[in-house]
Amino acid sequence: MAAEIVNPRSDGTKDHDAGGEPLDSFDPAFALHRGGKMAVQATVPIRDKDDLSLAYTPGVARVCTAIAEQPELVNDYTWKSSVVAVVTDGTAVLGLGDIGPEASLPVMEGKAILFKQFGGVDAVPIALACTDVDEIVETVVRLAPSFGGVNLEDISAPRCFEVERKLQERLDIPVFHDDQHGTAVVTLAALRNAARLTGKGLADLRAVISGAGAAGVAIAKMLVEAGIGDVAVTDRKGVVSADRADLTPVKRDLAGFTNKAGLTGTLEDALAGADVFIGVSGGTVAEAAVASMAEGAFVFAMANPNPEVHPEIAHKYAAVVATGRSDFPNQINNVLAFPGIFAGALQVRASRITEGMKIAAAEALAGVVGDDLAADYVIPSPFDERVAPAVTSAVAAAARAEGVARR
Amino acid sequence: MAAEIVNPRSDGTKDHDAGGEPLDSFDPAFALHRGGKMAVQATVPIRDKDDLSLAYTPGVARVCTAIAEQPELVNDYTWKSSVVAVVTDGTAVLGLGDIGPEASLPVMEGKAILFKQFGGVDAVPIALACTDVDEIVETVVRLAPSFGGVNLEDISAPRCFEVERKLQERLDIPVFHDDQHGTAVVTLAALRNAARLTGKGLADLRAVISGAGAAGVAIAKMLVEAGIGDVAVTDRKGVVSADRADLTPVKRDLAGFTNKAGLTGTLEDALAGADVFIGVSGGTVAEAAVASMAEGAFVFAMANPNPEVHPEIAHKYAAVVATGRSDFPNQINNVLAFPGIFAGALQVRASRITEGMKIAAAEALAGVVGDDLAADYVIPSPFDERVAPAVTSAVAAAARAEGVARR
Repeated sequence: MAAEIVNPRSDGTKDHDAGGEPLDSFDPAFALHRGGKMAVQATVPIRDKDDLSLAYTPGVARVCTAIAEQPELVNDYTWKSSVVAVVTDGTAVLGLGDIGPEASLPVMEGKAILFKQFGGVDAVPIALACTDVDEIVETVVRLAPSFGGVNLEDISAPRCFEVERKLQERLDIPVFHDDQHGTAVVTLAALRNAARLTGKGLADLRAVISGAGAAGVAIAKMLVEAGIGDVAVTDRKGVVSADRADLTPVKRDLAGFTNKAGLTGTLEDALAGADVFIGVSGGTVAEAAVASMAEGAFVFAMANPNPEVHPEIAHKYAAVVATGRSDFPNQINNVLAFPGIFAGALQVRASRITEGMKIAAAEALAGVVGDDLAADYVIPSPFDERVAPAVTSAVAAAARAEGVARR
Repeated sequence: MAAEIVNPRSDGTKDHDAGGEPLDSFDPAFALHRGGKMAVQATVPIRDKDDLSLAYTPGVARVCTAIAEQPELVNDYTWKSSVVAVVTDGTAVLGLGDIGPEASLPVMEGKAILFKQFGGVDAVPIALACTDVDEIVETVVRLAPSFGGVNLEDISAPRCFEVERKLQERLDIPVFHDDQHGTAVVTLAALRNAARLTGKGLADLRAVISGAGAAGVAIAKMLVEAGIGDVAVTDRKGVVSADRADLTPVKRDLAGFTNKAGLTGTLEDALAGADVFIGVSGGTVAEAAVASMAEGAFVFAMANPNPEVHPEIAHKYAAVVATGRSDFPNQINNVLAFPGIFAGALQVRASRITEGMKIAAAEALAGVVGDDLAADYVIPSPFDERVAPAVTSAVAAAARAEGVARR
């Protein structure tokens, strides 16, 4: 359909395809997006000149002066400590790739309203017209005085790793690349519950992750951190192993702390006898490979919109099946994590988001399932109202325990 | 009081002065500012997974794809075309000077909610941690994909002129330094009505502006553009005139199109026989100098909180007196201009804000006063609900007439 779109009418109020019908009448997504999905609102009244003299001049000058003399008051008397910048460069937007900053805005707005809806966190889309790592870093550092946190989004690998690391070094507010860590937190939560359901110990599990991009790398790190027995990551050339000569620095690092079994070969080779498959690649996995996994395996086929293996096929062999889709049970959805993680971090004015805070988020998220645990319910629904409060509390407590809280 | 502020209690919920009382209990401005003055809200429902599949994945991907293929659709299907970045570097905040980005945030939030309240325009505070002209420019250029316009605020002169000029050259969205042009528009509106009230022609007026900073320079340009007979600008060293050797490039430019009378000497010298005094300096003017002005003069003593001459003194000699304060008649308040100017420019997706659009805004603002014109009513109240719609329509029409509208 997109190729048929023509210029908007001169009045600019409707956009049409070549046949003359507005896009909005074809697709409810366009109707919903018209005018954008978010707005700013005042939280104080401005009814008369007395209100104005407090919210603006001259009253505001006293608040400014107090902050100038005692800088941490900015967190008490402005929205800084409740607002997150959702920053992208538009290079890895959903499965669409490098579509540029403007075209990424609907996703960033969507992310912003999910922050608000699920975590009560204000968020502002910032789509940048630069893709150089140092330019992105420098720009975000300059913006940082206005924000309590930075959520990086849809920045392509391997630049995303460097952008995040450099920003974390330079800023004293949380910087969190959701495509990495949000995905990892929710995956770990589902995995913990799958293990609990089947009576398996995390240390006894061997996992295979298909995809060595942002999500795959972060999931690998987190599973190792959480004590999974062994993790192998595969890219298009097969298992990431130390003997490969073609590894990027990020993958060489990955090879150093994964694949204790010393596997080589293809994804299918690695899956033989494995306990867990985690797909974040967008590729496909043959039924025979799933069939070759260990008895009672877990298959998390998270590619969107097409899972690496169809859930019905996976169910023939696996004890627990999860996907990234909302129309199958056990949806691994980042919205289960990032609103509560930022809400918890902002609540205690954490200077950063530590591994411990992420692990705590995963445990809290897994805990919401409680006694209702079942093969088709290892992870809660995004609309379960217990999720964000549980994650928020756990993250805030972990921040205090780890010494990164500032209140 | 500010010097007595001590660290917040460890629970972070209240801030105290040295005596142990919360700041909030001393000053209603602090109570009002607690937690900030603004928030983000979703304008679309996210009640269930069907909503989520339209506002976020997978539905959002179709909107992204359409924008990638037809970039101007970003204005129809995101909030870009209704949101303005309120950008500062914190170097010239109110009368407080260079207090830095964090301490400027209460003013930027105030500005943002005034945009919303009076113009229906969404606005986001962006306080930058850099003060170099090129760094500010580069940063704003990189942010620009997310915004429909840029309102520059409280950036010190002469850097503010260069920042604005360079951004206008590089961006195809409105860039408007409100301290310059907002002030100039409202001043011109008041001056037009004062002239109408007293039956004077603009071409017959000789005006003296005290202050050659952002506001003074912009007012001078606008008055000349609007056809005022002659304008002289004074700085701390007296009248800005071509024979002075100490002029900055901006003031040299100013000397080229002002002071046709070839005045030299002090502000007081220039005021002898002048028809209009416009104070944007923060200094003071002696009563004798006001007394030396022409019969039926206009005195706009706009320094805040202390007008250059007290209105009661000015009234002894002048036909029309205006100030920057809300507790005297005829308040010259930027909020009369910037919300409608941006609302009008965004409505027609103007690529910039031209001189003609600013003149149109001033005429529309003056026109709201109508038949109620009186010496104590040459400019409407900020709470007059006719103001923003009148300015918005006039600016949109002027943008179309000048060929900068894109819808």
